[in-house]
Amino acid sequence: MDITPPLSPLSHPEIREIAIVGGTHGNERSGVELVRLWEKRPELLRRPGLNVTTTLGNPRACEANRRYLERDLNRCFAPEVLDAPSSGVLEEDRARELNALIGPRGSDRMPDLCLDLHNTSSNMGLTIIFNVLDHFVEKLVAHLAANEPKARLYYQPVDPTTSEFLPSLGRHDLTIEAGPQHHGTLCADLHSRMEAMTYEMLDFCAAWNRPDFKEPPPRELELFVDWKNIDYPRDENGRIAAMIHPGVDGMDYCELPPGAPLFLDFDGRIVWNPETEPAWPLFVNEQAYYEKGIAMTLTRRTVVQW
Amino acid sequence: MDITPPLSPLSHPEIREIAIVGGTHGNERSGVELVRLWEKRPELLRRPGLNVTTTLGNPRACEANRRYLERDLNRCFAPEVLDAPSSGVLEEDRARELNALIGPRGSDRMPDLCLDLHNTSSNMGLTIIFNVLDHFVEKLVAHLAANEPKARLYYQPVDPTTSEFLPSLGRHDLTIEAGPQHHGTLCADLHSRMEAMTYEMLDFCAAWNRPDFKEPPPRELELFVDWKNIDYPRDENGRIAAMIHPGVDGMDYCELPPGAPLFLDFDGRIVWNPETEPAWPLFVNEQAYYEKGIAMTLTRRTVVQW
Repeated sequence: MDITPPLSPLSHPEIREIAIVGGTHGNERSGVELVRLWEKRPELLRRPGLNVTTTLGNPRACEANRRYLERDLNRCFAPEVLDAPSSGVLEEDRARELNALIGPRGSDRMPDLCLDLHNTSSNMGLTIIFNVLDHFVEKLVAHLAANEPKARLYYQPVDPTTSEFLPSLGRHDLTIEAGPQHHGTLCADLHSRMEAMTYEMLDFCAAWNRPDFKEPPPRELELFVDWKNIDYPRDENGRIAAMIHPGVDGMDYCELPPGAPLFLDFDGRIVWNPETEPAWPLFVNEQAYYEKGIAMTLTRRTVVQW
Repeated sequence: MDITPPLSPLSHPEIREIAIVGGTHGNERSGVELVRLWEKRPELLRRPGLNVTTTLGNPRACEANRRYLERDLNRCFAPEVLDAPSSGVLEEDRARELNALIGPRGSDRMPDLCLDLHNTSSNMGLTIIFNVLDHFVEKLVAHLAANEPKARLYYQPVDPTTSEFLPSLGRHDLTIEAGPQHHGTLCADLHSRMEAMTYEMLDFCAAWNRPDFKEPPPRELELFVDWKNIDYPRDENGRIAAMIHPGVDGMDYCELPPGAPLFLDFDGRIVWNPETEPAWPLFVNEQAYYEKGIAMTLTRRTVVQW
């Protein structure tokens, strides 16, 4: 697997402008409550040399404690939405507002880093997701992983110019997914860990900008690289015909060998993993993905020195 | 605490007609999928001397994979709803339909037992809830608890003639709450246990009716008796101002002493348990109860010989 990062135009870009977004999904409440906290206490985010802004992604969905009202906001940042005129679809209009407010994407005004705070119902600990990789991102995520025992690194390569995800509004993107947390609820432990990881990120960026910054030596890290999504077995009416097998449910980041039990149908029959190579699933049994036809995301595991 | 059951008109009532309902909440999918399975394979429910019917409580909410569309169906069975004419509120109309189909409550046509299948996002294992207690219920739940290691018994006394809960459509009521399961998802392990417990219930009822039925000797059982619901701390705008404390979250059925940490606010301050006697919380951090203003239900623990 070749995960050589694309050549960066700068080997050591300055990271000055940082946009933090919570509540992109209104029922993922850790980010919602953190943004509300930081609006009241902005001093918590102040670091020398950094300009940090916070934004509630989808305020109307947050009020309703729902993922979205009309359309998943975190799939609304593709150019065909951003470049279109007002559509009357709440989340599409909000994506254009956020693009103007935080970006605009592709312009000189983009922040150096956009962090989006999410929760998942899957057992993913604190997963750090990034779509674009360069030397800064490598060192940043290595630092975050070193300071959070539940951290996992998930690299999901996406062309930032056509991405449908919100954090593509920054020159560098980062998403924290904290789980398992039931959507619409708060888990104090995950909330505290997400808050601490955000502060670690800011501390690292402030240090990174200093002329005397010394890179920590490379560390060996597990990296999970996006492979593909798989759906539930379906019956002739398109209805889900099986559940995640108990041996896989809750086992995000554990190896799924070829031929292992994968699903269990309602008559108690096992559906076996048809893949011919091992996979490491994540977003296993994510509640919000039932409607998207995703039972889990398969990744490939590799080891990097970052 | 006095939990002497009300005197039963029959010490050994026959249990012939049994109504099983799933999908009273459309996103509590264990019961939804079990009812769909039993519609295809009714032989799974057949037992000598029993007439078992199955009903999907709220089919439109099941299709939408939501708890309800307009109003919580499992709060629609109070007389002021059941006795009213059509209101145009989906769940109120459905409650009247179900009353006619399964009940009517208070009539001779009521089933001897109504079982309602639910899931909870709380860590409640397989909780058996009953609102009305008599000798049959004692022996039934003792039997179920003996056959399911995750079983817990929760007695929530409710006057069946004015109850707002669906299973009050039966002469005896039983609810199985299986969790933790994210609403809108399926957990194969809990699904299988709920299915097995339903079959145990039918086996017991079939045996109970036989003239040669021998009562098993009384067993010592933990019983959790409803005390009261408590809400989250709120700010001046009525917004939730604190999370369940990590020492309580997920700790359903564990003793909560007076003065123990109960909530944690967003500034990291502890809110202490103000009660002066120990409690055993359940429905801790239940997702569906955020909108109801319930952070958890406090119960009192007792030991019975059933």
